Amino acid sequence: MSKDGTLYLVPNLLGVVAPPEVLPLRTIETARRLDHWVVETPKAARAFIKSLSPPQAIAALDIRELGQAPAPAHLKSLLAPALAGSDIGLLSDAGCPGVADPGAALVAAAHAAGIRIAPLVGPSALLLALMASGMNGQTFAFHGYLPIKTEARAQRLRALDDKATQSGATQLFIETPYRNAAMIAAVLTHCRRETQFCVAADLTLKSEWITRRTIASWRKESAPPLDKRPAVFLLGT
Amino acid sequence: MSKDGTLYLVPNLLGVVAPPEVLPLRTIETARRLDHWVVETPKAARAFIKSLSPPQAIAALDIRELGQAPAPAHLKSLLAPALAGSDIGLLSDAGCPGVADPGAALVAAAHAAGIRIAPLVGPSALLLALMASGMNGQTFAFHGYLPIKTEARAQRLRALDDKATQSGATQLFIETPYRNAAMIAAVLTHCRRETQFCVAADLTLKSEWITRRTIASWRKESAPPLDKRPAVFLLGT
Repeated sequence: MSKDGTLYLVPNLLGVVAPPEVLPLRTIETARRLDHWVVETPKAARAFIKSLSPPQAIAALDIRELGQAPAPAHLKSLLAPALAGSDIGLLSDAGCPGVADPGAALVAAAHAAGIRIAPLVGPSALLLALMASGMNGQTFAFHGYLPIKTEARAQRLRALDDKATQSGATQLFIETPYRNAAMIAAVLTHCRRETQFCVAADLTLKSEWITRRTIASWRKESAPPLDKRPAVFLLGT
Repeated sequence: MSKDGTLYLVPNLLGVVAPPEVLPLRTIETARRLDHWVVETPKAARAFIKSLSPPQAIAALDIRELGQAPAPAHLKSLLAPALAGSDIGLLSDAGCPGVADPGAALVAAAHAAGIRIAPLVGPSALLLALMASGMNGQTFAFHGYLPIKTEARAQRLRALDDKATQSGATQLFIETPYRNAAMIAAVLTHCRRETQFCVAADLTLKSEWITRRTIASWRKESAPPLDKRPAVFLLGT
């Protein structure tokens, strides 16, 4: 039996909420006892770990930054504690590492190194939005961020609308929160009247706001201000 | 302000595990106090609710079956308690309702009726598998069950392999557990040597088993018996 450490994939909160509200005991207890972390942003990571009231001093933790497009040698050094027998936590700034968030490269490197990987349960804005949309959850696709330029974005939205209409598969995408209003305006302009459009903002927070209706109905009734509120967008039938 | 009840989307366990291990307090506390339920299978629902030790007698709960392809009139009657001011829980036999599981039709009807929808955090085999695969989580697609007939399945697997290779998007699918061995054999036969293939079985359980390697490497080293163990399959780059 291997004595290597495990790479735990630790979901972070989606905003200001008490950890036990959205994280199971196993996730909290596992995260509390980890001494080694690979994170998206050290400051956000320290705030999260502190919110779990761990027994160790935060300053004593080994917290390393994943970095953008990490090179193989960097990944190897990040995984060194696991090969030496210690568990490692992988954490992004919000939600589940590796899903619409950094971290997949480290998990892939851990597979290649034969390190055990244990994904922990916690909030995912994508998954909660898909559940709450009432759209097709038997077949769906996530596209990350769409193009920013007006014409490229319009083309992409028309293509996603076609895909949702023709295949019936739900199409999910996200946007930088300060561009939410522009994204909604573009969707209302470029998608079919009959298409169902769902916006799910501030998931798991007190300000959670989830609305789904046809594009025709959205055109009649505008959305509340969604500036700076993280949101997931869904097109479906 | 509306006095209507809320439709809570309650994730179920993925197998034999203590509820607090994989469900946050908010999910457990919300589920414990619900008197009205719409469920996939009443027997499984009662076992789940009982595991939360609710204050009410299980026999006193209003537990109704969603049914396959529920008609509009049936959905309307299932939502009646919410319109009368009571909260309702939607529950499937495992994991998150509406995602690779029944329930979306009820959520869609709740949107149409103006009922508030609150998705609760809990385990999703798809999401945990995607996190644990270390494959692309910035763009991915879920396809549900693939065709059962040999030639149709082979064609579909070749198409998904092409899609993963050309677009880089992770392709997820599932299979009835007693056909896992046949599915793995088909994947190893029909996909490219270089394609990454991940199998994630028994997620969140003690027997959790997650392996990702190239098809070429899978061909050399066979999988352990996965019969009757729920699994998620992923193809990626």
